[in-house]
Amino acid sequence: MKTALIKEIYRNKENFKDQNITIAGWIRTLRASNAFGFIELNDGSFFKNIQVVFEEDLENFKEISKLTISSSIIIEGKLKLTPDAKQPFEIKATKIMVEGLSDREYPLQKKRHSLEFLRTIAHLRPRSNTFSAVFRVRSIAAYAIHKFFQERGFVYAHTPIITGSDCEGAGEMFRLTTLDLDHIPRNDEGQIDFKEDFFGKETNLTVSGQLAAEAYALAFRNVYTFGPTFRAENSNTARHAAEFWMIEPEIAFAELEDNMQLAEDMIKYVINYVLEHAPEEMAFFNQFIDKGVLERLENIVSANFGRITYTDAVEILKKANVKFEYPVEWGCDLQTEHERYLTEKVLKKPVFVTDYPKGIKAFYMRINEDDKTVAAMDLLVPGVGEIIGGSQREERLDVLEKRIEEMGLNKEDYWWYLELRKYGGTKHAGFGLGFERLIMYMTGMSNIRDVIAFPRTTKSAEF
Amino acid sequence: MKTALIKEIYRNKENFKDQNITIAGWIRTLRASNAFGFIELNDGSFFKNIQVVFEEDLENFKEISKLTISSSIIIEGKLKLTPDAKQPFEIKATKIMVEGLSDREYPLQKKRHSLEFLRTIAHLRPRSNTFSAVFRVRSIAAYAIHKFFQERGFVYAHTPIITGSDCEGAGEMFRLTTLDLDHIPRNDEGQIDFKEDFFGKETNLTVSGQLAAEAYALAFRNVYTFGPTFRAENSNTARHAAEFWMIEPEIAFAELEDNMQLAEDMIKYVINYVLEHAPEEMAFFNQFIDKGVLERLENIVSANFGRITYTDAVEILKKANVKFEYPVEWGCDLQTEHERYLTEKVLKKPVFVTDYPKGIKAFYMRINEDDKTVAAMDLLVPGVGEIIGGSQREERLDVLEKRIEEMGLNKEDYWWYLELRKYGGTKHAGFGLGFERLIMYMTGMSNIRDVIAFPRTTKSAEF
Repeated sequence: MKTALIKEIYRNKENFKDQNITIAGWIRTLRASNAFGFIELNDGSFFKNIQVVFEEDLENFKEISKLTISSSIIIEGKLKLTPDAKQPFEIKATKIMVEGLSDREYPLQKKRHSLEFLRTIAHLRPRSNTFSAVFRVRSIAAYAIHKFFQERGFVYAHTPIITGSDCEGAGEMFRLTTLDLDHIPRNDEGQIDFKEDFFGKETNLTVSGQLAAEAYALAFRNVYTFGPTFRAENSNTARHAAEFWMIEPEIAFAELEDNMQLAEDMIKYVINYVLEHAPEEMAFFNQFIDKGVLERLENIVSANFGRITYTDAVEILKKANVKFEYPVEWGCDLQTEHERYLTEKVLKKPVFVTDYPKGIKAFYMRINEDDKTVAAMDLLVPGVGEIIGGSQREERLDVLEKRIEEMGLNKEDYWWYLELRKYGGTKHAGFGLGFERLIMYMTGMSNIRDVIAFPRTTKSAEF
Repeated sequence: MKTALIKEIYRNKENFKDQNITIAGWIRTLRASNAFGFIELNDGSFFKNIQVVFEEDLENFKEISKLTISSSIIIEGKLKLTPDAKQPFEIKATKIMVEGLSDREYPLQKKRHSLEFLRTIAHLRPRSNTFSAVFRVRSIAAYAIHKFFQERGFVYAHTPIITGSDCEGAGEMFRLTTLDLDHIPRNDEGQIDFKEDFFGKETNLTVSGQLAAEAYALAFRNVYTFGPTFRAENSNTARHAAEFWMIEPEIAFAELEDNMQLAEDMIKYVINYVLEHAPEEMAFFNQFIDKGVLERLENIVSANFGRITYTDAVEILKKANVKFEYPVEWGCDLQTEHERYLTEKVLKKPVFVTDYPKGIKAFYMRINEDDKTVAAMDLLVPGVGEIIGGSQREERLDVLEKRIEEMGLNKEDYWWYLELRKYGGTKHAGFGLGFERLIMYMTGMSNIRDVIAFPRTTKSAEF
């Protein structure tokens, strides 16, 4: 079916001027009198609609005049530039074919709907302006991430989703099984016999690809993952989903400063790419969703990200003339209120907080010379707080082994991870970026359920 | 840590000629006499090694002479072009720093290892030539797929991995749960009470993103998914994994012929991209893994893919002067032996087989006018057989409902899928490509376990 895409027409209208073309799409609005009518048609290729004019000389004028919202049609007609009108051009239809009539009950009529209601029709909501923009931006941002890393020679590693390990250290896990829950096999000691399970052992959904990515960084030097990760945490908030996508680069022969530079370069690249490739969508967000979003993003792109140690940050927070809900002491984790104060009030730009107390960070982070802090980094951004967490990894076998023991973990579970240090380990570092958090930040959408096509959260796995 | 990448040096050697540079990497081979030594260094950025020469004027000459394979080092030195030697250039080292000494037990010594053995050290095997090539090609091919679709304006949709549906119709599923298997909650009827489970219902890992992708195609017109999918099938073969990545485009206002054209364009694009961006790796596969692979791929790129109906294919197979293991009759599924005969002996090029009997295909495929066949397509390629399966989807609500009933499925399970037809449905089509199958095809690797970083198969989820 050879039809022109509305995006092509918007981008090269001179090429289509006065041409007879065929387009296809869904009716967003239709109004008709006895003599003529207008259709706003959207074909999904572009954020904007195209205006179609039809007149009573049309063979099926009456049928078309009564078409319902969201009906799909195919239109033949001539493209006319309309320099004096609101829209840059319109199609004068010579033929309109009805492809699929939409039922009058179509729930996405023109009136405004709440985001909560739209979640209940997640199969239809991408046909609305807001979600058309959100999911096109999500797609473009995903591509920008691949492009950024591939242009720098990073190898994209598909780390496993199913893991035989429950010790990735990043959160609660979902168990996976093919056992018949009504007849769970048991061994002689009465324990569940996982030898009968599909993989012959207990398995879970991964919470992070990092450990596997480290193995690949020690072969390919610069690698990244970009895939789904899972948390079985009962966090019914606007910022937590049970299934979300994460980007985890890992770089060898690299220290914390290289890691921060990479994070800064990546964030700026992705924002620039989206601003350039989705200007209509970004203008929409700026107008209807989050009035300051364009300015905020432009500030980020032009800022030099700050750096401050955790210890200095705590000093600043303690001296701050602000009543925090959670008081700050050296050794405690920073809360969102602290993070936002630092990035919004003190530094007024994105800032990396580094060198956190080892007691509040994961076992794999590199111990600093003071033996009290680790070479960790969190990137805080105005309006949100933490958006990236990362660290230099502990490459010293003896130090790492001691740390695993100290934290009460089981060394045998990490045999291959330890071997990476035994056979030519090197300084290396990496970070994790929650993709949905980035999309929320770029679009101004405030609920994670509204940037995931079919969100999975506590007590909800619809569609 | 500012170092040059070996890839940059190979690609722009004139820029580095006679320059003092710093490189970092892992020792692949080392041989030394009392006066000088040679190191083949690989830094993971490139398939090939760089040769490093060091002489006894080096401060730590003795230490370096005894370094073990896979030790990581940082080298300062001058790049010398060597037009008369086997390698195009070498580094004359002025300083070598040991970053991480590798244990003598390093299992990947220079001698040849079986692929089976290498699977037991999946964390180290990407440091071998074969797996360095496989996983770099995998990364490049993944990017080519994104590039192909994004350049054509397709929206990348992240369809859900966790599904509340067990009726996607493509295979056995893994159950997901956070219930305590030792104390499974039960309701008054004694049945398992999934209301207590994380999502408040039974959930599984997806076997296909297609149904969700259709919802997005009916909003964005052209979309694709590229993510992990799962099959809990006890198929202990060289071609089946429990976790694998799949690409599933879905296009609206499109028929079977558009679908075939898209598949043909995509396969050719990806092959061309890999041939162009991984010439060293592809030459390696052609020399050491699969002698005909380059010729085979070049033939595919230049061929016009054939088209034949299932009915005609069966006629040809029945008349063929060949003894098949499985006899052919109209109505049976084609086996790999039949597929390979058609593509290798009869058409001698890639071929789409279309219009299969409805009885052997899924409920969502569009019924043809003969009411006996469906608008399905399988792409068969020489050397492998089927590599892509797709179809035009049934867009007629009444026909689809009838078909769901006929097949004993539950209409309520598909409420939102049916609504896609109720609210402005259109002709649409799509296909699925198993990414690992494509990588096997392009590299000549014959076991799916050898194109997945950490493979998950029956009774195996190591690492």
